[in-house]
Amino acid sequence: MDALEILSDLENVFPYFQPIFSADEQQVIAYEVLGRYRTEDNIISLGPFFKDDQIPDEYKFEVDLLLVKKALEKAFDLENDISIFLNRNAELLMYGHGEPFLQELLAFEKKGFNLSRIVLEISDRNYRGDLDQFDHLLQYYRTYGIKIAISSIDSESHHFERIGQLEPDILKINLEALKSTATGVNFNDVLFTLSLLARKIGATLLFENIEMSYQLQFAWKNGGRYYQGFYLYPPEAEFIQRDFLKHRLKEKFHDFISYEKRKLEGVYLATEYFHVKVQEIVMKNKKVGYEELFQAVVKEMDQIAFRMYICDEDGFQKSANFFNGKNGWVIQSEYMNKNWSWRPYFLENIIKMRNERKGILSDLYCDIETGENIRTFSYPMNENEYLFIDISYQYLFEHDQLL
Amino acid sequence: MDALEILSDLENVFPYFQPIFSADEQQVIAYEVLGRYRTEDNIISLGPFFKDDQIPDEYKFEVDLLLVKKALEKAFDLENDISIFLNRNAELLMYGHGEPFLQELLAFEKKGFNLSRIVLEISDRNYRGDLDQFDHLLQYYRTYGIKIAISSIDSESHHFERIGQLEPDILKINLEALKSTATGVNFNDVLFTLSLLARKIGATLLFENIEMSYQLQFAWKNGGRYYQGFYLYPPEAEFIQRDFLKHRLKEKFHDFISYEKRKLEGVYLATEYFHVKVQEIVMKNKKVGYEELFQAVVKEMDQIAFRMYICDEDGFQKSANFFNGKNGWVIQSEYMNKNWSWRPYFLENIIKMRNERKGILSDLYCDIETGENIRTFSYPMNENEYLFIDISYQYLFEHDQLL
Repeated sequence: MDALEILSDLENVFPYFQPIFSADEQQVIAYEVLGRYRTEDNIISLGPFFKDDQIPDEYKFEVDLLLVKKALEKAFDLENDISIFLNRNAELLMYGHGEPFLQELLAFEKKGFNLSRIVLEISDRNYRGDLDQFDHLLQYYRTYGIKIAISSIDSESHHFERIGQLEPDILKINLEALKSTATGVNFNDVLFTLSLLARKIGATLLFENIEMSYQLQFAWKNGGRYYQGFYLYPPEAEFIQRDFLKHRLKEKFHDFISYEKRKLEGVYLATEYFHVKVQEIVMKNKKVGYEELFQAVVKEMDQIAFRMYICDEDGFQKSANFFNGKNGWVIQSEYMNKNWSWRPYFLENIIKMRNERKGILSDLYCDIETGENIRTFSYPMNENEYLFIDISYQYLFEHDQLL
Repeated sequence: MDALEILSDLENVFPYFQPIFSADEQQVIAYEVLGRYRTEDNIISLGPFFKDDQIPDEYKFEVDLLLVKKALEKAFDLENDISIFLNRNAELLMYGHGEPFLQELLAFEKKGFNLSRIVLEISDRNYRGDLDQFDHLLQYYRTYGIKIAISSIDSESHHFERIGQLEPDILKINLEALKSTATGVNFNDVLFTLSLLARKIGATLLFENIEMSYQLQFAWKNGGRYYQGFYLYPPEAEFIQRDFLKHRLKEKFHDFISYEKRKLEGVYLATEYFHVKVQEIVMKNKKVGYEELFQAVVKEMDQIAFRMYICDEDGFQKSANFFNGKNGWVIQSEYMNKNWSWRPYFLENIIKMRNERKGILSDLYCDIETGENIRTFSYPMNENEYLFIDISYQYLFEHDQLL
């Protein structure tokens, strides 16, 4: 594509709009603006034009400003709670210290366009300028109600630090990475933690490039509030009815919710099952030593547990580990007196058990020593003895609602 | 420092060792090897030498190999469960396709040094070579039992993606960032989520540059198992008694544990308090409409709550929002029929409430609309109506065990 050809033919530059749907309303809540150029026999994306390092920023700025104008003009047709996402890389945003772009937006504000409907999708991946100045500019824009979205995860890298610094309103997650096997099993865990980070800092998760049903479910399950992708709707020249997908999305979510509730119910039932079982064993073995108690547990839970130990309420281990290794159950006395209070959830669970006198089945996590995904069932024997039973991956695998 | 001067005076190149302590054992579990050079009147760090881009890799490799040799020779004096951390940037590690370094390690293995005691601290921040090849080399090293540590967070950036790809055994977190105000309030949230990511993927967190007591507490509270820094012990030429700090660390941890337990107990008591209060209100107002119920809650909890609404067990909102804004309590009917099942913990809490018929006080999180840190108290009115009451920051601030 020849840059000069485009610059001398601006009337064929125009915006496409891809709808963004929300999980809470199941309808369109925004459109992302994408640049297009009409050639003699085709409509092509302006993405390569904006990414081309050889093209001077002032050319890009001119084309971009035109796109923004045309898009916002058209946006007057929309309900006034629908947002407009504009892509900005740092160079484009910093052009003229960000003033000309802001002036353009303010002109639209005068015509009645509320700037809190503008979401700037920032990309500063390869920015060579002063990042501090860039951040200040963003904060300045925000004083006008403009919102900031950043890509937190894509195929290149995950910039958690920038998330912390920019405190974006929206985190975009590109699900293209889901398709690549190179991403690895941990992508799931990274996304899970990202959803919690978003919760903690008050950011909304937007999943983009949703191309298949399972990706939508994945996004929903991982705290995604906004969704975008060909599976939902492609970019087009015109807006769509905002409830266009309402029926289908409601059905989809209904399925996701039912599935998830069944799974959660399964975890709850398993917890009850372990609680009753362990309670019985502990009651029957009140007066025996730890090792005898462990043996009694093994008798009942040999194929379920692979490690057990007892801690006091400060997390100091009062027993050795009883561990099912290659040669059967062994005592590992080197674990005696170790302290586990520094582990996530540990003291929280102790307090919960102490007060409610009920066992707790942990989330699924990776055992540091065996490297396997496990859960731990913990049980309050009394005020100062808490029994921990690590449940083997094999058992979880055979009861897959626990995975 | 002149590189040639060092190269021609290798006998004055020698290792320093900084001890790494563990939270579970409260004793030294490893040493990090740091390069030093003895000048006529001083001992200087070789850090700048290794970081200098002008110095050819082969020089660095030679000096490094000597350090490794001297360090491992000395490490024969240690108990054989104490690990040795060796710093490697990618260039150094890839030198000679990683073979000469591995051969050196294997020579030590022959002499009886178990390679599972070696931890390579990898830094690939500015690596310009083939990252795939680098990753393959690391996997190859791991087949010998060698462990991998990476810096997940420092002042430059947080590479969550690399964490997912490399599946390191250990994540190093540099607490220097804690001192900078630029880090912002979100550093805490980033670290919290990082500790959960580590839990999910089975990695151990090592906090380095601990220079003050509050940093040790911060590390302990955020899932840190290993600690390193001047507050504990400086790098020195000699090893120390491994239980050198045991007494002091035990005391410290005891304080941290007591403080944390008091806080957690406070949260538990607040949950009980809200449960009893809300239960009473709901019982008294069984036959009234939602708005009247909300008014009854406001009467009792005006300074506590700032928003309330009712959802069914699939997360669909059955009531409007009742919100305490600038002009007092108002009804926001646009929230009716919204769905919240996609939010982290939502369905999990519904299932818990349904089964246990008890209210739940959420963790502290950032409200998307107000931007304030809040908690939500949720209460099961019956099988299909769950009351959500958002607790104001002001109230939490006045009851600071809830913050």
